[in-house]
Amino acid sequence: MITVVLVETEGEENIGAVARAMMNMDVDCLALVNPRCDHLSKNALNYAVHASEILEQAKVFTSLREALEDADLSAAITRRTGQWRKRDFIIEDFSNFLAGYKDRNVSLVFGREKYGLTNEEIRSADLICSIPSSDKFPSINLSQAVMITLYDIYRTNLHKPSHTGKLTASREQYAIMLESIMSAFDEMDFFRTVPSWRLKNYINKILIRAGLDGNDCLIIKNLFTRVRGKFQSLLRQGR
Amino acid sequence: MITVVLVETEGEENIGAVARAMMNMDVDCLALVNPRCDHLSKNALNYAVHASEILEQAKVFTSLREALEDADLSAAITRRTGQWRKRDFIIEDFSNFLAGYKDRNVSLVFGREKYGLTNEEIRSADLICSIPSSDKFPSINLSQAVMITLYDIYRTNLHKPSHTGKLTASREQYAIMLESIMSAFDEMDFFRTVPSWRLKNYINKILIRAGLDGNDCLIIKNLFTRVRGKFQSLLRQGR
Repeated sequence: MITVVLVETEGEENIGAVARAMMNMDVDCLALVNPRCDHLSKNALNYAVHASEILEQAKVFTSLREALEDADLSAAITRRTGQWRKRDFIIEDFSNFLAGYKDRNVSLVFGREKYGLTNEEIRSADLICSIPSSDKFPSINLSQAVMITLYDIYRTNLHKPSHTGKLTASREQYAIMLESIMSAFDEMDFFRTVPSWRLKNYINKILIRAGLDGNDCLIIKNLFTRVRGKFQSLLRQGR
Repeated sequence: MITVVLVETEGEENIGAVARAMMNMDVDCLALVNPRCDHLSKNALNYAVHASEILEQAKVFTSLREALEDADLSAAITRRTGQWRKRDFIIEDFSNFLAGYKDRNVSLVFGREKYGLTNEEIRSADLICSIPSSDKFPSINLSQAVMITLYDIYRTNLHKPSHTGKLTASREQYAIMLESIMSAFDEMDFFRTVPSWRLKNYINKILIRAGLDGNDCLIIKNLFTRVRGKFQSLLRQGR
């Protein structure tokens, strides 16, 4: 299931147009983080045309982390990249990647009309995706960016065979594994030199892109639990 | 070169948003057929953001045929199909097809917000393309439809090698060939049973999709010129 997450949207027209685009592309769930306008205003409903139900059933959150709590996978759709916000996918490769997330909760995060997403918000998403656009004027209107993203996923799904194939791990399976990795590094006193969030972010990206299933997560978790145990026992011997 | 052709657009916001989408996707030429609003209004310019030049340089026409005069290839983007308006492509296959039209004039025709394009307007375009969308609410906002179309072409171009390969015939080469075909059928007194526009429309679609180059056009033209000559001499003998 795909959820569109809009962060601090200002324009009622934009929220309405997003709802219409969602319904055009068979996506129902809308999450609003601190909306800066009334998403149930007449203006918003006008732009939504037949998609008013999506607006009425939208969930409102006070923080992005809260909005992403149930997501098995989250992606920030943004064109701004930088040292700590490197792009993982362009949107059409992301659409293909999503084949492993059928029946999982996938959240797509879109930023403010004027300045997009903050670095911290970007970090709370698993992946960064961008929409290719002209160097002359790369900034795409919010509802257009949502439409391109959902269209590309819709288009890609049309080609997909109906069987699901390998199913990516659930958020819980994945989180347990990541925790065991981080705790192994912690045991090694790794985080005096590298901030833990930075390493976690990096490892998370690599493993998310690897499309691990539940079994992979279990194997990796057990591996790092063993690493940690080994290190602990060495430490004890050293004392 | 791609031209976006808008037929009798009502919304200034839509025309402005189309201009922005065009600039986002590196398309400059806008043609307006009988616009129902002021495309240089403050509202339109606001929605265009940095793409005001596209609006200022837009060409205005009083008929679609006139707007398509210089086009080597024209496609109506529409979701309504019917007996005489059968779809030739979905948009992503059309994007691939366009590889043969590099350095040619390609016009993409979009209809009115409320009821799209008339049958006659559809017939004046070479091809019909549609954007896949949900059965529940298939009607996509005009500027969103333009954006999806241009995005899909932009995305596809990114994968294309820089050499052009086979170049599709020019409008003139193609028209001469089509004329020779029609004139052969005319000689055969074919049009007492089938209206000529219907056959022409059908043959045009097939040959356009075949992606003929200049040489192909010459060969086919000569073939039908011979057919016509043969038929003429038979008629003379019969008298």
